[in-house]
Amino acid sequence: MSYTAYFQRYLPLVEEHMQGVLERGDEVVAGHYAMMAYHLGWRDAALKPARVYAGKRVRPLLLLLATEAVEGDISHALPAAAAVEFLHNFSLLHDDVEDRSPTRRGRPTVWSLWGIPQAINVGDGMFALAYQALEGLADHHPAARVLTAFHLFTETALRLTEGQYLDMGYESRLDVDEQAYVTMIEGKTAALLAASTGLGALLGGAEEGVWRAYYTFGRYVGLTFQIVDDILGIWGDEQKVGKSVLSDILTKKKTYPVVYALTRSQVAPVLRELYAGPPFTERDVPRVVALLEESGAKEAAWAQARRFHERARSALMEAPVPATPARDALLEFVDALLTRDT
Amino acid sequence: MSYTAYFQRYLPLVEEHMQGVLERGDEVVAGHYAMMAYHLGWRDAALKPARVYAGKRVRPLLLLLATEAVEGDISHALPAAAAVEFLHNFSLLHDDVEDRSPTRRGRPTVWSLWGIPQAINVGDGMFALAYQALEGLADHHPAARVLTAFHLFTETALRLTEGQYLDMGYESRLDVDEQAYVTMIEGKTAALLAASTGLGALLGGAEEGVWRAYYTFGRYVGLTFQIVDDILGIWGDEQKVGKSVLSDILTKKKTYPVVYALTRSQVAPVLRELYAGPPFTERDVPRVVALLEESGAKEAAWAQARRFHERARSALMEAPVPATPARDALLEFVDALLTRDT
Repeated sequence: MSYTAYFQRYLPLVEEHMQGVLERGDEVVAGHYAMMAYHLGWRDAALKPARVYAGKRVRPLLLLLATEAVEGDISHALPAAAAVEFLHNFSLLHDDVEDRSPTRRGRPTVWSLWGIPQAINVGDGMFALAYQALEGLADHHPAARVLTAFHLFTETALRLTEGQYLDMGYESRLDVDEQAYVTMIEGKTAALLAASTGLGALLGGAEEGVWRAYYTFGRYVGLTFQIVDDILGIWGDEQKVGKSVLSDILTKKKTYPVVYALTRSQVAPVLRELYAGPPFTERDVPRVVALLEESGAKEAAWAQARRFHERARSALMEAPVPATPARDALLEFVDALLTRDT
Repeated sequence: MSYTAYFQRYLPLVEEHMQGVLERGDEVVAGHYAMMAYHLGWRDAALKPARVYAGKRVRPLLLLLATEAVEGDISHALPAAAAVEFLHNFSLLHDDVEDRSPTRRGRPTVWSLWGIPQAINVGDGMFALAYQALEGLADHHPAARVLTAFHLFTETALRLTEGQYLDMGYESRLDVDEQAYVTMIEGKTAALLAASTGLGALLGGAEEGVWRAYYTFGRYVGLTFQIVDDILGIWGDEQKVGKSVLSDILTKKKTYPVVYALTRSQVAPVLRELYAGPPFTERDVPRVVALLEESGAKEAAWAQARRFHERARSALMEAPVPATPARDALLEFVDALLTRDT
């Protein structure tokens, strides 16, 4: 069975469980949770109930697929599935404030509708809600396992903030090398994907050697995903990617291709001068993209993505992980990252 | 023994434990944790080691005193003591951004030194660090008790964000009544003090009836504290309070005396007109304070503080709480709130 078929089956379960966690609080604080629901696509900008696309929920879906891959009961992993999605969305809410992004997935961001102070607090509430979701594990699992889940989760939350710290610091630096870049995306992207598949297997009842293999798998899924995302951010089809392919260049983001070209290519001196200079306008973009192409950055990025992809595969193939249809679906998922165009 | 003597004994233990939790992470993310250390008074604005006053640490000190009051081992409660102080400071970091406060305790706030994006992320990191501190409980307590501690803690974090949501919403409202005000300070102030004394007793090994009595005690300590704080914010001695006694008036903050005068006094119509009008300048302050005095708000606020103080006392006196010297020190602490002048 394809991973997409599993995902279709899981998605309504994830949505329902998340909504159950969000239903809390006095009437007087309903607006606080309604803004969270807006961000998650369950309310419109007037805070009326709605059903709008607001993300693929890939982290909870991968979590449940890992539970199924170790032949566990996915209904007992739903609290963690909800928790990783809340944690992801907490970080998006704050990223949007930090980057002053006016829109996300075609809708105004929370801060642009209700102001920065509310948006910070809405993000904080969603962070706490992630922990509240996680508590639900105690209904189905021994307390020691729940504490292991809390530990993985908190470590991940810290790594997210470390990755964000690095990302913000890199904005003004030209000497970000591949190692520094990978350290950053380990925190910003890979840690939460690792926690998702690791928690999924842990809560499916897997032995430590097995759930750690799933953790490593998720980590390399995250690294592969991010490099491909960086490539599509420059060379992707704008219609399909859904965001301007210019924005990563315009904001001088230190993506993998840029880092490669700035530090390891023939065009480095010219490119550094451009990146050290005044902010880019749309007119600068073609020249920058041409330099990146000349540098071989695109090929280097694909090569790096393939290396990470290979490590994701071998995490599951070389560990004592039972071969199950759901495990094969996870392998299919990471293979598909290399051919994604959106 | 006076509570101040207990606090003097505990303070270095709290500081040391918190510093131990903060020492983590790669060298590359040291700056992230150094900004947290600045906020906590352990580094200066150049991020060099320092020792600056940055708060009384009253929450962890009360937590440990509650542990001692039930004859528990305070060294086994230190992880929770550190956690409540990290959680408190996470909320201060974000409050400072939300209120655009340039200084806190005489020093520039994190956002004013390193910008809003970093300050949001530093706060997020400290939130996660609170959970990491809490994990240390697993070394000393059965897993079920640790999960109860996590539950209390997460509930408190949510209540903090709910209180902040209400506080921000009240800024533009004139119809905030006493009940709405109390709901807000239950979240912003009382919840974390309740969790502190409740966790202290829980981790001291108290039975549920006892630790819940300590929880209720802390809740009313918080409510008493906040009302007195509101009174001192208007009628306190500026030298002693350490902040301008004008600022609560200038920002039209909905403190208890203001809420009382706006909704229940003879001067309500005049005062409402002023509060509905343009922003106050320093020249408006004497007239507003005179109206508040005429309204009887000061007396009403003291009466309310005394009622909350009485409920704090009876939480410990009427429950099956063992009479210990540390319990008496906690009673002395809440008594002292009524005569504090700073």
